[in-house]
Amino acid sequence: MTIKLFELSGSDPERRFSPYCWAIRMALAHKGLDVQTIPWRFMDRDVLAPSGQTKVPVLVHGDKWLSESWDIANYLEQTFPDRPTLFGGPQGTALSKFYCNFAVVMASQAIRMILVDIYDHLTETDKPYFRESREQRFGMSLEQVVADRESKLQPFRDGLMPLRMTLKQQEFFGGDQPLYADYALFGVFQWARCISPFELLAADDPVALWRTRLLNAFNGLAQSAPGYD
Amino acid sequence: MTIKLFELSGSDPERRFSPYCWAIRMALAHKGLDVQTIPWRFMDRDVLAPSGQTKVPVLVHGDKWLSESWDIANYLEQTFPDRPTLFGGPQGTALSKFYCNFAVVMASQAIRMILVDIYDHLTETDKPYFRESREQRFGMSLEQVVADRESKLQPFRDGLMPLRMTLKQQEFFGGDQPLYADYALFGVFQWARCISPFELLAADDPVALWRTRLLNAFNGLAQSAPGYD
Repeated sequence: MTIKLFELSGSDPERRFSPYCWAIRMALAHKGLDVQTIPWRFMDRDVLAPSGQTKVPVLVHGDKWLSESWDIANYLEQTFPDRPTLFGGPQGTALSKFYCNFAVVMASQAIRMILVDIYDHLTETDKPYFRESREQRFGMSLEQVVADRESKLQPFRDGLMPLRMTLKQQEFFGGDQPLYADYALFGVFQWARCISPFELLAADDPVALWRTRLLNAFNGLAQSAPGYD
Repeated sequence: MTIKLFELSGSDPERRFSPYCWAIRMALAHKGLDVQTIPWRFMDRDVLAPSGQTKVPVLVHGDKWLSESWDIANYLEQTFPDRPTLFGGPQGTALSKFYCNFAVVMASQAIRMILVDIYDHLTETDKPYFRESREQRFGMSLEQVVADRESKLQPFRDGLMPLRMTLKQQEFFGGDQPLYADYALFGVFQWARCISPFELLAADDPVALWRTRLLNAFNGLAQSAPGYD
């Protein structure tokens, strides 16, 4: 039964840049599941109608339409229990939620450095929607949001301290092997890497070394995606 | 076999104010284990000699001396596997490490608001050591560290956003029930509560409501400890 995943894409359909879609792509690879990915743009509302959603990720498995990355990851865990676990049982599942929220906060900070880079990669159809909705959200122009972005880099990196400390103590947040918690956080860095040349991490940061391990995971699935290095 | 726990104390021996000792106290209660707590001050170096440590928590179980809260929690999990789990298996253990590091970062921020309150509660014997060592660490006087502490409150609370988001979604970081991850974070708030009247959380913050649930846990173990409300 084919699994399909709608992924946010730029004008280049191979450029996929949703943090949450990337978390699911990695989760699917972790489970050893084949997936047919479908490029999706903000204006492609109609194709998601069966999910009741207007945003991705949306995963289709047989006649099931699933949305929200957390719900999709839990669906994969429950539907394919004999494959490598994404959570490690009920306690591990509960403990993973905080990582997902930490990722949301990271993304909300990182977007203030890469917002214009996102805009620049969109289709001409998506651009007006994106500019209008984001300028309304931020209360200023896209260009104003990312102005002086270099000044936002150190506070962003400072906020990663608990990640950094942990990755000095173990290879992955999941221990010797990554779990969904790793993929949720990694999605933010992979999103940024796919859409922006602006480097969020210092090269010798333990967080960057962990990112490299995940870029190389699953035969370089994330590394080989169109992006910046 | 009696379990003994050395806990950092002020001039009032009942005032216990180490975040990491509190994490272990809660972990012991979670396991349903009786404990004999022993007040310890910074200058009581000799009594810890068998542990090879100069700081608490130090736990003594039979002829075993254990130190470092993370190692103690793992010892309790392994030694009492039939009692309620603190981690939920190997993945849950690995996932808990980030919480402990998040707690360390929270404590490093909170101490800049409560450092003088700590000093004020110490024995006269501990005070000179504490002032000298902390003033060297911070590169300024204790009083300078906490100057204008009100201005540090909002950044501290902002940094709790991923905790707050999670606690809107579930009762505890461990899910329906607390796990060691909860106790590691709670220790920071209980440390502050025991030593300082300076309130770190807004009353309606979901983090404050979670703190109240843990203050009330185990028949009010933490609530009944000498502190501020």
